[in-house]
Amino acid sequence: MGKYGPKDCTKSPRYCNIRTFMLLPYLKTLDDVDFVVAGVPYDTACTTRAGARFGPAAIRDASMLLRPHNPDMDISIFDYLSGVDYGDIDIVPDDIETSYTNIYDEAFKIYQSGVKPIFLGGDHSISLPLIRAAKDVFGPVALVHFDSHSDTDDNLWGRKYMHATPFRRAAEEDCLSMDHSIQIGIRGPIYGSEGLKDAEDLGFEVLTRRKMRKMGLEASIEKIRNRVQGATAIYVTFDIDFLDPAYAPGTGTMEVGGFTTWEAIEIIRDGLKGLNIVGFDLVEVLPAYDSPGQITSCAASNIVYEFITLLALNKKSK
Amino acid sequence: MGKYGPKDCTKSPRYCNIRTFMLLPYLKTLDDVDFVVAGVPYDTACTTRAGARFGPAAIRDASMLLRPHNPDMDISIFDYLSGVDYGDIDIVPDDIETSYTNIYDEAFKIYQSGVKPIFLGGDHSISLPLIRAAKDVFGPVALVHFDSHSDTDDNLWGRKYMHATPFRRAAEEDCLSMDHSIQIGIRGPIYGSEGLKDAEDLGFEVLTRRKMRKMGLEASIEKIRNRVQGATAIYVTFDIDFLDPAYAPGTGTMEVGGFTTWEAIEIIRDGLKGLNIVGFDLVEVLPAYDSPGQITSCAASNIVYEFITLLALNKKSK
Amino acid sequence: MGKYGPKDCTKSPRYCNIRTFMLLPYLKTLDDVDFVVAGVPYDTACTTRAGARFGPAAIRDASMLLRPHNPDMDISIFDYLSGVDYGDIDIVPDDIETSYTNIYDEAFKIYQSGVKPIFLGGDHSISLPLIRAAKDVFGPVALVHFDSHSDTDDNLWGRKYMHATPFRRAAEEDCLSMDHSIQIGIRGPIYGSEGLKDAEDLGFEVLTRRKMRKMGLEASIEKIRNRVQGATAIYVTFDIDFLDPAYAPGTGTMEVGGFTTWEAIEIIRDGLKGLNIVGFDLVEVLPAYDSPGQITSCAASNIVYEFITLLALNKKSK
Amino acid sequence: MGKYGPKDCTKSPRYCNIRTFMLLPYLKTLDDVDFVVAGVPYDTACTTRAGARFGPAAIRDASMLLRPHNPDMDISIFDYLSGVDYGDIDIVPDDIETSYTNIYDEAFKIYQSGVKPIFLGGDHSISLPLIRAAKDVFGPVALVHFDSHSDTDDNLWGRKYMHATPFRRAAEEDCLSMDHSIQIGIRGPIYGSEGLKDAEDLGFEVLTRRKMRKMGLEASIEKIRNRVQGATAIYVTFDIDFLDPAYAPGTGTMEVGGFTTWEAIEIIRDGLKGLNIVGFDLVEVLPAYDSPGQITSCAASNIVYEFITLLALNKKSK
Amino acid sequence: MGKYGPKDCTKSPRYCNIRTFMLLPYLKTLDDVDFVVAGVPYDTACTTRAGARFGPAAIRDASMLLRPHNPDMDISIFDYLSGVDYGDIDIVPDDIETSYTNIYDEAFKIYQSGVKPIFLGGDHSISLPLIRAAKDVFGPVALVHFDSHSDTDDNLWGRKYMHATPFRRAAEEDCLSMDHSIQIGIRGPIYGSEGLKDAEDLGFEVLTRRKMRKMGLEASIEKIRNRVQGATAIYVTFDIDFLDPAYAPGTGTMEVGGFTTWEAIEIIRDGLKGLNIVGFDLVEVLPAYDSPGQITSCAASNIVYEFITLLALNKKSK
Amino acid sequence: MGKYGPKDCTKSPRYCNIRTFMLLPYLKTLDDVDFVVAGVPYDTACTTRAGARFGPAAIRDASMLLRPHNPDMDISIFDYLSGVDYGDIDIVPDDIETSYTNIYDEAFKIYQSGVKPIFLGGDHSISLPLIRAAKDVFGPVALVHFDSHSDTDDNLWGRKYMHATPFRRAAEEDCLSMDHSIQIGIRGPIYGSEGLKDAEDLGFEVLTRRKMRKMGLEASIEKIRNRVQGATAIYVTFDIDFLDPAYAPGTGTMEVGGFTTWEAIEIIRDGLKGLNIVGFDLVEVLPAYDSPGQITSCAASNIVYEFITLLALNKKSK
Repeated sequence: MGKYGPKDCTKSPRYCNIRTFMLLPYLKTLDDVDFVVAGVPYDTACTTRAGARFGPAAIRDASMLLRPHNPDMDISIFDYLSGVDYGDIDIVPDDIETSYTNIYDEAFKIYQSGVKPIFLGGDHSISLPLIRAAKDVFGPVALVHFDSHSDTDDNLWGRKYMHATPFRRAAEEDCLSMDHSIQIGIRGPIYGSEGLKDAEDLGFEVLTRRKMRKMGLEASIEKIRNRVQGATAIYVTFDIDFLDPAYAPGTGTMEVGGFTTWEAIEIIRDGLKGLNIVGFDLVEVLPAYDSPGQITSCAASNIVYEFITLLALNKKSK
Repeated sequence: MGKYGPKDCTKSPRYCNIRTFMLLPYLKTLDDVDFVVAGVPYDTACTTRAGARFGPAAIRDASMLLRPHNPDMDISIFDYLSGVDYGDIDIVPDDIETSYTNIYDEAFKIYQSGVKPIFLGGDHSISLPLIRAAKDVFGPVALVHFDSHSDTDDNLWGRKYMHATPFRRAAEEDCLSMDHSIQIGIRGPIYGSEGLKDAEDLGFEVLTRRKMRKMGLEASIEKIRNRVQGATAIYVTFDIDFLDPAYAPGTGTMEVGGFTTWEAIEIIRDGLKGLNIVGFDLVEVLPAYDSPGQITSCAASNIVYEFITLLALNKKSK
Repeated sequence: MGKYGPKDCTKSPRYCNIRTFMLLPYLKTLDDVDFVVAGVPYDTACTTRAGARFGPAAIRDASMLLRPHNPDMDISIFDYLSGVDYGDIDIVPDDIETSYTNIYDEAFKIYQSGVKPIFLGGDHSISLPLIRAAKDVFGPVALVHFDSHSDTDDNLWGRKYMHATPFRRAAEEDCLSMDHSIQIGIRGPIYGSEGLKDAEDLGFEVLTRRKMRKMGLEASIEKIRNRVQGATAIYVTFDIDFLDPAYAPGTGTMEVGGFTTWEAIEIIRDGLKGLNIVGFDLVEVLPAYDSPGQITSCAASNIVYEFITLLALNKKSK
Repeated sequence: MGKYGPKDCTKSPRYCNIRTFMLLPYLKTLDDVDFVVAGVPYDTACTTRAGARFGPAAIRDASMLLRPHNPDMDISIFDYLSGVDYGDIDIVPDDIETSYTNIYDEAFKIYQSGVKPIFLGGDHSISLPLIRAAKDVFGPVALVHFDSHSDTDDNLWGRKYMHATPFRRAAEEDCLSMDHSIQIGIRGPIYGSEGLKDAEDLGFEVLTRRKMRKMGLEASIEKIRNRVQGATAIYVTFDIDFLDPAYAPGTGTMEVGGFTTWEAIEIIRDGLKGLNIVGFDLVEVLPAYDSPGQITSCAASNIVYEFITLLALNKKSK
Repeated sequence: MGKYGPKDCTKSPRYCNIRTFMLLPYLKTLDDVDFVVAGVPYDTACTTRAGARFGPAAIRDASMLLRPHNPDMDISIFDYLSGVDYGDIDIVPDDIETSYTNIYDEAFKIYQSGVKPIFLGGDHSISLPLIRAAKDVFGPVALVHFDSHSDTDDNLWGRKYMHATPFRRAAEEDCLSMDHSIQIGIRGPIYGSEGLKDAEDLGFEVLTRRKMRKMGLEASIEKIRNRVQGATAIYVTFDIDFLDPAYAPGTGTMEVGGFTTWEAIEIIRDGLKGLNIVGFDLVEVLPAYDSPGQITSCAASNIVYEFITLLALNKKSK
Repeated sequence: MGKYGPKDCTKSPRYCNIRTFMLLPYLKTLDDVDFVVAGVPYDTACTTRAGARFGPAAIRDASMLLRPHNPDMDISIFDYLSGVDYGDIDIVPDDIETSYTNIYDEAFKIYQSGVKPIFLGGDHSISLPLIRAAKDVFGPVALVHFDSHSDTDDNLWGRKYMHATPFRRAAEEDCLSMDHSIQIGIRGPIYGSEGLKDAEDLGFEVLTRRKMRKMGLEASIEKIRNRVQGATAIYVTFDIDFLDPAYAPGTGTMEVGGFTTWEAIEIIRDGLKGLNIVGFDLVEVLPAYDSPGQITSCAASNIVYEFITLLALNKKSK
């Protein structure tokens, strides 16, 4: 049994508590901990709808519903893991340099400690410092990137660090093991044909929505596993707009014709099991646009839950 | 043609009316009636989000859109059936004993009269007195239970009658014909591995979401039909969270990766046709969390419509 | 490269602009133009929820997110087309005669000029004058009709021109080439069995949701292509309630068990490619009932985008 | 004690019931009745936001909270009055002639019976047939008109019967006792200076918001009482946009700088007490634009409650 | 300077943090602390809308905006006080006995330690155990009760402990110093004339909304000060529905014609300054009914802020 | 009669149109124009809630309801003025330098032309370049600043250009005629006592909410007039959070206890009439947090309307 786990809810309901992720202890520690959940509420690099800064708070709120046993995978997470809510990393809105430094520093410290982090965005620009730190600890990482956008623009209006550019930057900076990196679920109108070609030119395998729909879910999962095979360190980034707007309305650049939560969960379970994943992030949840029932935050919290389950399964299988 | 049917809408639109279910007469009668729709707005046994007490009003409001002919099943319901809106059963919030007594008494009276009831919850705790009364009239009933949760906890915080416990209670009280009882769509994080095992230990067949996704819809339907075959009296309970949050955001304990309304309707039609169903309930609609377009209440009203269609088809085939 | 295309967004983001469709120029011109997008905010012929009059404004607002290259179809739209936002056609609420006259006149002028129009409703009653004008320019048109309702009632409360009657009127007035006309996605409770039979008696092929689900998407698409084969002029009308309420909650007469946006897009792409379509409309978006994330307007803008893509592909293939 | 009063709520809460106004019996009767509440869900004469057709249902829903004793006025309403929910008058959307006929006929019947009606709109166009019928029973009536708009336009786009014209029509048709008629709360941008002058030219006293703010509430009330003094029959019409949008956001043509609910209640109580009011209406509640807490419908139901209190006080004082 | 104060926001914005009240440390301690804020999410004693269990979480979320210096009162709170977020008291939904025991125990412990508590409800039933504990520590307390309802019913449906009964119970149990107890803002329809008389018969001074409006704010404040003068220990309970629904839409039993936030703040500041207040609660915030901008939770957090300011001013003046 | 005015709405309703401000022509021209309305959707300098970038679009949408005659001031605006919607100024999110340059350039051009601009934000950081340009054309300007915050912080997290700092910057850069500058409505918790003192030390007169409530509205207006008397050029900036959250919920840093729309309008009319105002801005409208009825955008559009009225009255009086 891990040292830190969710609040015991045998005395009162799950809603009786400060809203940490999954009701884990709120502790900025890396001792006796297998994983941490940390908020990164930076969102001033977004290009359309704003508000992902409130993503961490909303995902934590929705995570109240999560319970420790994952029945599909038949595992009680905290039999194998100890985890805490690490709080938020200090960021400065509209100051990507300072924010990147803070994010990098915290992430570096976590990676080095051997603890597995799950970062809650924030917009997608936060992935760059998270990946930079991973590279500085583990060497270039294989990227498994769930998204409807490649986010490999060179710049927007001359700005090099926007939420549409992190993976070009990461590739340029040799942070990624390109041969093992893959983008999943890409779709939707783009500015020009170079949009997709760019990502491929950088070395990504791009598994578009259309390809996935044509080949089916199982073949898509096979593609992912083949791609990451042999990677020594993997980083997983999940933009909530991978999901269809019906499943995740609370986001900034919705693209219709997306995936269901079940499809997402299946890809995570079968596509990512047993891999050496060194870090995760989940980004672009905008609570102000969510439905009154908060289904986007709920979906996000369940995606994170599957990430944690992967960690527990890995620990168990050792 | 049944004696009581929906308001004639050839004189003015469907929205010109007091909001009874499907614009049926509001009559607390069991004479000349084949089915009744009755609200049971008890919700103080819920463990997370509250507000299912407003479920009956919201489902009635949305049911305004329903029309009497079901084209898929090619039947004009009120050619075969007479039905009324029975109003709500008197309940007392926070007083489950009095509420259970009132619910039991009304249900017993209805069952005894031979009229088929459809109850609108309220939280899932209401199913227990409804099933108790069914058992006292018909003997132990086979349960067909659509839900994402088994609701077979022993207790929560020492409370034996919460919306997470009714089917353990029903089983313990020998209200159910366990050999013919089945739970459908179960999914989502639970407190421990015993969660699912408990339901099976009680004697339920548990058709989890994962099993259903693996075997497909047709095989799932076959499983259901096999299970209920030979049952003399069947009770159907439908927790709206069987549906995915994208389809039913207005509920209390959403579990992602669920079913579409079309899947639900297919299971009802093909899985439940021709059976001797003595009662139905539909529970856990929380209007305060629904989307502005009220899609949850709309889905719920359509599920009820399919229940009524089953009754009409049975009557027709006699 | 077309003369008129979306605003150049290399200087500032897409949200920095007056909300025309896709940030096209707001010009009431037919010169040097391949297609126009025009609003038709008439909605006083609706029979339940009102508010489609705000559909054009909401779809324009959501269309801000659309970009000029369609990656699935590998085409940069404005390499082949010039298009403008034509503004709204003057209508008078509650005065269908004047409105019909205005709509007819504008549509006639557009069709005659050879420009392809895409009309944004408004309720479905607007399709009648749009089709009348098409017939007067091109002769009877083949109708491809996406909807959950046939809209072939004879009248409602004695009213001949309601949003439930346009396609009976169009058929009666010999505006349609019935042998090539098809209704797609029809579903949901109706008043009586004549509901569907009526449409077939008028000569429509009716591809109900149930049939489509049984035969699958590919076979459904084949059915559509077979039906329209040989038609000289095709008119496409798309009621947003073709989509499931989970995907399009912001509409007036939701019918559950509908289609996903991906299914809609697939049908449009594979079912309608290469055809001589003379006009399109998209109707029944009611922003007041949409989710806070505006997913209905977003879906609608993407459907329109696929229509425009069809035009671009046709131009390219010439 | 009146024959008909609200449901007895000593057995179960107020929310356990079909949503009639104040939980009164739903009976289309004029026997043994002092007042009736009747819905008039016609709204196709509105010129901007649509949806007042759902006003009656929403006001009924909110009226669940009303209880029979008005403490400020120290009266138990149903000690003096018997009342029922009369249901809705049949209207046909987009068909003002038929609708006006139906409304007139029902209203005439009610007035003739001596029963006091309170009509729930619907848009403001419904007041015309309601006033016509009043005039045919009682002779020209004094109008007390709460609103932010005079609604005395001659026509809109040539249409004579829109929600901006009823009081010009009523004046032209000699339905009103102009010397005793007054408009209260008028404010907001208009098309031209004739806007206000028109109303005065027709004979109305126009108590604009600005005048009221300058003279204060007491003097305003005095103005009203002076105006209606000597009138034999008074008709009260209350457009919910009399209230400020902060108090009544769910309406169609909001005008800022309006009145609080307390001010409205004070004017009703002190301005209208003891008068021979033959009918009331409350119009322009649009639930689709209301806040999630439904404060507009709540305000509306309380205004109606004050109307009923006036009737009870009159009865008591006899 | 107090030991515990809000997070230092000079390194990153206020939204970068776990949502404790005012970003205070989350510590279940009474050492080195002047005040604690504690959640009491019990709401199963409510009689209409449910959901106050989420009040504490929502108020904490909104309190993010509060800053430590109150300019009107010219005081930097944490120069004088040390405070923490104590978390939530364990309650069991639908089990008022266990909940009351837990609430009593925690409250007793806090009062005894000399720390000043501010409790966040929950429904109004939580005030009873909070007052019982206060009485057991301090003797009968003077009650200053802001509300639109007296909450002095004897029972509802036979239930003695509902959110409409706590102050009758408290009076009966001799927990209150009746000569110094006062109810402020009472208004709205009630079941019968005994409603108000009851409260007076129990010994409360009842300052109804109507009286307050007639005498004005200053005289009302004078009334309050006169009433509490000489009281040795005062308990303040604030039902958010004291405010008008325009200012606090997110509550369960709205009563129109209420007070503005400014009026509430003025009464608190001038009416309660310098008094020996031993405890506060703020109840009946229902986030599911709040406006999208969360103005109710924002108002609630500011009321609590004024309570804390009172404590700081008292400390300063010593 | 001015050359450019709102669309003629005698042919169809106001909602039939592309959403420019007040349905004015969308023209980027300064010829034959008295005033322009221009959007400045920059919001990456905000420190809490994001989303003011969508303010201009939402205010334009709501402005649809405005009509050309202001009855309180008895003036038909376009008898005296010609105005256009100038569109949005190109800004780059997260790049305040480029944005400031663009904003400055456009503003300078407009001021120089003698046209009066009304700028729609955006967050409050946009006022700095707008004021800089004004100073470069007219010399130091007197600032009339409606807000609940002084926005005179030195920096936030080291950032000098945030929405909390513009007026310190403007003062430091000698853009303001301090002797004639005044802040109105300031209220709410601040970080320390220096908060208010800072503004006064910079030379602003600070009319706090508390002072205003104590002295009353008329005296407050007198204060404003006295302050600006003798100023040669005045710039008016209006942060929507000057209004109470009940009146303007859709903003980022709500402060309770604020002003009503009527109070705002009165201050504008009586406080600012006849002055030489060279520019206006209205900032901090966040549509994602507005109520469903969009009352904040509606209020904002009416404030702008009063600004335009001031210009018309000045022109008329010449």
